[in-house]
Amino acid sequence: MHKTFSIELPAWLPVWLEQRGDDLATDEARMSFVIELARQNVRAGTGGPFAAAVFEPENHRLIAMGVNLVTASGLSLAHAEMVALSLAQQHFGDWDLARHGELMLVTSCEPCAMCFGAVPWSGVRSMVCGARKEDAEAAGFDEGHKPDDWASSLRERGIEVSEGVLREEATEVFDFYRAQGGVIYNPGGDAEF
Amino acid sequence: MHKTFSIELPAWLPVWLEQRGDDLATDEARMSFVIELARQNVRAGTGGPFAAAVFEPENHRLIAMGVNLVTASGLSLAHAEMVALSLAQQHFGDWDLARHGELMLVTSCEPCAMCFGAVPWSGVRSMVCGARKEDAEAAGFDEGHKPDDWASSLRERGIEVSEGVLREEATEVFDFYRAQGGVIYNPGGDAEF
Repeated sequence: MHKTFSIELPAWLPVWLEQRGDDLATDEARMSFVIELARQNVRAGTGGPFAAAVFEPENHRLIAMGVNLVTASGLSLAHAEMVALSLAQQHFGDWDLARHGELMLVTSCEPCAMCFGAVPWSGVRSMVCGARKEDAEAAGFDEGHKPDDWASSLRERGIEVSEGVLREEATEVFDFYRAQGGVIYNPGGDAEF
Repeated sequence: MHKTFSIELPAWLPVWLEQRGDDLATDEARMSFVIELARQNVRAGTGGPFAAAVFEPENHRLIAMGVNLVTASGLSLAHAEMVALSLAQQHFGDWDLARHGELMLVTSCEPCAMCFGAVPWSGVRSMVCGARKEDAEAAGFDEGHKPDDWASSLRERGIEVSEGVLREEATEVFDFYRAQGGVIYNPGGDAEF
């Protein structure tokens, strides 16, 4: 009986981060950083074309990063948002990020049904999304069954939501993934492009 | 920058399992086992009053177990269902359980919004739920914003759903948790009973 599981960022990620000099002062700058991270995940072949990061926007500080690691980890929960939120919680040693300032989740794509559900539990106070659900679905990804009023329901909980930030650039990473022959990892049978 | 996170079952769990002799032949037997697991998690003080397990129902085989470990792990995603599904995926070395038979998730409580979203990604083919959303909410737990047609949407994806199995027994564990003074871990401020 297995008793433990772990998720680890790919080895290329800290190296990649050291080479960057993003100033992370605006939502667009943070999104551009996250989109590049998604592109790098595809280039390295470590997972799907999705990335996310948690920031302390007030002081432009990067707290944690995540990329899609479903195939690399063998775990279906290893979506970029889940990885970034969990690593931010590790950083603070606390499952409730709301106790550590006004933290922001930036994700290269609108969250799927699971990641949408995970956002309020994490304690982030805002979320900035790149590509939209229909962009991910057009690329062959199943986004799951999310309530139509998902964004307003988060706002009602006091979580700010910005949608479609650098949408076109974020969607280009899906095309890049397809061009590379990436696996569309929907359960019950992979479609390969 | 943190690069890895892990979730580990509590040390009492394998010991507890060895002392049991459940035959796990029916949904009720499997649910009863899972409810006892939830009760043990409360007794041991390792987390919330929720447990889940993945079974191969055809041969009555237990594949993986999970308990709520949010406070123990410091990770908001450490709901019982997420832990059980991930450990089942570790067991098979594959993020898609659909490639390994007709696997069943049994959970002592109807899934929250996050765990609902996670079910289709996992590849399980059926889900059996104990307590209902309103039972968890009456006990002070936030279940999140799940589509009203959540169960039928899973059925449309070919995932069987049974609700309210041993509901009363499952709900009793919430009362036990409150009586023990358990933390209701909703982000943005804990309520203690």
